[in-house]
Amino acid sequence: MSTTRTDHTTQVRGVSFVAGDEVTGDAGVMRAVAAATGEAIAPGYPLLNTADLSRATEAAAAAFPILRATTPDARAGLLAAIADEIERDRDVIIARAMVESGLPEARLTGEVGRTTGQLRLFADVVRQGDHLGVRVDPALPDRTPLPRPDLRQRMVPLGPVAVFGASNFPLAFSTAGGDTASALAAGCPVVVKGHPAHPGTGELVARAVTRAVAAADLPGGIFSFVLGEGHEFGRTLVTDARIKAVGFTGSRGGGLALTAAAADRPEPIPVYAEMSSVNPVVILPGALAEHGADGARELAEGFVGSLTLGAGQFCTNPGLVFVPTGADGDAFVAAAGQAVAATTGQPMLTPAIAEAYRTGVDRLAATAGVDRIAEGSPGDGAGRPAPSLSSASSPTGEAVAEVFGSSAVVIRYDDPAALADQLANLEGQLTVTVCYAPADADAARQLLPVLEDRAGRILFNGWPTGVEVSHAMVHGGPYPATSDSRTTSVGTRAIERFQRPVCYQDVPDELLPEAVRKDNPWGLVRRIDGRLELS
Amino acid sequence: MSTTRTDHTTQVRGVSFVAGDEVTGDAGVMRAVAAATGEAIAPGYPLLNTADLSRATEAAAAAFPILRATTPDARAGLLAAIADEIERDRDVIIARAMVESGLPEARLTGEVGRTTGQLRLFADVVRQGDHLGVRVDPALPDRTPLPRPDLRQRMVPLGPVAVFGASNFPLAFSTAGGDTASALAAGCPVVVKGHPAHPGTGELVARAVTRAVAAADLPGGIFSFVLGEGHEFGRTLVTDARIKAVGFTGSRGGGLALTAAAADRPEPIPVYAEMSSVNPVVILPGALAEHGADGARELAEGFVGSLTLGAGQFCTNPGLVFVPTGADGDAFVAAAGQAVAATTGQPMLTPAIAEAYRTGVDRLAATAGVDRIAEGSPGDGAGRPAPSLSSASSPTGEAVAEVFGSSAVVIRYDDPAALADQLANLEGQLTVTVCYAPADADAARQLLPVLEDRAGRILFNGWPTGVEVSHAMVHGGPYPATSDSRTTSVGTRAIERFQRPVCYQDVPDELLPEAVRKDNPWGLVRRIDGRLELS
Repeated sequence: MSTTRTDHTTQVRGVSFVAGDEVTGDAGVMRAVAAATGEAIAPGYPLLNTADLSRATEAAAAAFPILRATTPDARAGLLAAIADEIERDRDVIIARAMVESGLPEARLTGEVGRTTGQLRLFADVVRQGDHLGVRVDPALPDRTPLPRPDLRQRMVPLGPVAVFGASNFPLAFSTAGGDTASALAAGCPVVVKGHPAHPGTGELVARAVTRAVAAADLPGGIFSFVLGEGHEFGRTLVTDARIKAVGFTGSRGGGLALTAAAADRPEPIPVYAEMSSVNPVVILPGALAEHGADGARELAEGFVGSLTLGAGQFCTNPGLVFVPTGADGDAFVAAAGQAVAATTGQPMLTPAIAEAYRTGVDRLAATAGVDRIAEGSPGDGAGRPAPSLSSASSPTGEAVAEVFGSSAVVIRYDDPAALADQLANLEGQLTVTVCYAPADADAARQLLPVLEDRAGRILFNGWPTGVEVSHAMVHGGPYPATSDSRTTSVGTRAIERFQRPVCYQDVPDELLPEAVRKDNPWGLVRRIDGRLELS
Repeated sequence: MSTTRTDHTTQVRGVSFVAGDEVTGDAGVMRAVAAATGEAIAPGYPLLNTADLSRATEAAAAAFPILRATTPDARAGLLAAIADEIERDRDVIIARAMVESGLPEARLTGEVGRTTGQLRLFADVVRQGDHLGVRVDPALPDRTPLPRPDLRQRMVPLGPVAVFGASNFPLAFSTAGGDTASALAAGCPVVVKGHPAHPGTGELVARAVTRAVAAADLPGGIFSFVLGEGHEFGRTLVTDARIKAVGFTGSRGGGLALTAAAADRPEPIPVYAEMSSVNPVVILPGALAEHGADGARELAEGFVGSLTLGAGQFCTNPGLVFVPTGADGDAFVAAAGQAVAATTGQPMLTPAIAEAYRTGVDRLAATAGVDRIAEGSPGDGAGRPAPSLSSASSPTGEAVAEVFGSSAVVIRYDDPAALADQLANLEGQLTVTVCYAPADADAARQLLPVLEDRAGRILFNGWPTGVEVSHAMVHGGPYPATSDSRTTSVGTRAIERFQRPVCYQDVPDELLPEAVRKDNPWGLVRRIDGRLELS
């Protein structure tokens, strides 16, 4: 590993960052690929070896006691400073991300805003301190038969976190995305495995983070960004004894491999893997009937807009739609077919993703009971496959397997009771969408408990491809949508993934952490004897 | 499986309970063993086969939609009614538990109180509703560039839970113990695998629960109590597709086997296994010096009292004690040796547990660097092995492996800095105890972050063997103390193990569950736009 001190420029230089240092390794050289052309672009990224990786995790472990001991203001300040530094380099980051991802400028501009907004939202969370979940059961020295000791509880961070970003959000779900923001907010150092689909974007963001860490006078080990070869490098990171939790966004295969590796460690660790979802859409009869044939067309165009947004490369892309039998449903399917036929393929993130999409669409077409309804046109140039709409006789097997990209399957249903059974048998989902009118109230009431059971988010009369970053959002859901349905990777509850409770029993006040001291110096909300008290 | 309708008597009849029915199976017959004599006692328990088990999980799945839809009052009423029914049969339960466990009447009387108190505490939690974690981000229709939808979040129950009770708390950590109480409170039906060390106690408690469920006019599938043969029966329960989470208290081997089985399912599920801990005690020099030689004796007697309480059969039993070198430490060790030498073995829970204790003590004695300091006398009769105190040259290997029972190891240390390193290298623990005087403040400040990192509960100037059931308690800790450090199995936070968040986006108010309706009909605490609002 060769090391030079970071020079705080915003050039893409072909480096990783280990504990504040720009580094290059000797494990081969990777080049980014331009999504629009499929061509390799400069610079080369000399990949790190496992010894370099060890240096990153060791520095993370050494930095952990310092990060966990930061005050709320200091930690919030770091998060806000990272947002500022990313904004400072916004133009160069967007320019590089456009080339690497093929995503348009407007989308990436929005994603920078989402990324910095997310960092600032977690800064607010840290300043407010509710995530510390302080609980106090005061001593009852006169209780019989036994006195009660003084008991105080707060959340502490788990330790260094490994983050595996997603290809489809090179900013908001990658280097300084939601996993990194929530882990740092919890007080956990982060080691990001740089995504090979956007190494340059990753490097630029990592440089911004590294500047913010240095300016905050915190140890560089709080944040590393490591580029390495293939799955084995990721596995080595996850099985490093100094790593205490994992955040992952990506494919089901990748998520399951990391989950298995984490479970096989001498000390197993939690993995939050957001993996796979076809995000069913349920069109209820009343919603179709409400506006006659125009209503069906409007709904169909809304659906196809969500299906093809960003080349269909959203975790919440709607890949399965339940449509009532009958004339209104026929009109919806016909309109959706026309809308898909009118689409043109947009560039996908990588050649491999485009190829996997084509393979998935072909496999679907070859499946018994599945028929092609419509296909768009491929775009001009490599990696722009055609959007596709199929019908299937039943929501099982290949018909409900995720095809990452703009492919959806239509299922017709006769009555909402049968629909409930079909939905109940689906795998876990990130979202379920319901197109609804007041005439559908009875059917919707029947469906809701099933939807709650199958998805992390239920949305009515909208489309699933927007995910608000806020307090009430859930971007999660039962397996295989995620590896752990009890939390979320978007929204402020995401911080809970990286914390655990500790109870302090009869610890003298002068030794207690500020969060649980009797005089509540941080002015935290506390649960006293089971009742919340605002400060 | 032969089935008769429950007759609501309190006799031990040799049955399991499946969905409200008394049942017996054809998979062999088990008898309870009296801990005091090692002799099998009546009645025989005809064990269930896997088809019987399937009936229990199927009924649990069928009952789930009904239990999850109960109002807070109805669900709290069920928990309180279970407590009432257990109290109604208190005498017969205690009598049977004394025979099966060998635990004394006073201890079991206390444990009934703990069990019913725990059920009523969860009834309070359910009535209050804070566990629903309601969050609301109101719509911002005029926001640019995009409006914000109305977002509402609440916790929903995971589904049917399998509970594996512990031998050492035949009431509070078994059939209607903390796992069952918190799962029912969350809205999850429960299937308890009856513990073979106390089948009669389990049957009596299960009958009380079954009566309460029937009286509440809820489906019997909400609660089953199944007795079956060996590990394979437990594995079949955990791998049943209808089971959605597991609570376990017991050995490391058992916990890891169930955790692996749960991870290997087509749909992996969360397991909370509380497994293994040696609960280190740290004697700081000032605490010893404070009262001279008398202080050392007092501390030593307190320590040995905690070590030998209930034959050392507590999850939080202190099995490792760090003592400063020097005269005061020597006095402590000498006094502890005298106190252990004066003890007599009490009956252990089962012959197998007594045998495992003897094997563990022998293995420890055969370990290089380990010396016997003192041994008590074995008790009169079977299964009453002698308490034991050893010293070891370093806190590693066999010296820090749990020996379930009254065996502890003394480690001497020169200075608190070295002590911090030794503690940092220990496995995860349920508790760490510090004997402290104000003169130790600097050392304690140095140690605290290490202790937070290694244990779920840190207690000063007490002994770890009492675990308060309250809001701020943590009975958990890093692996291998538990399989998931992010929660607890004792205290009201335990309910979080069996819940997951769901977000409702733009769902019409008339369809929303009460918990998230605009007019807040249940008067819940809500987080509105990130700020808690008391109702």
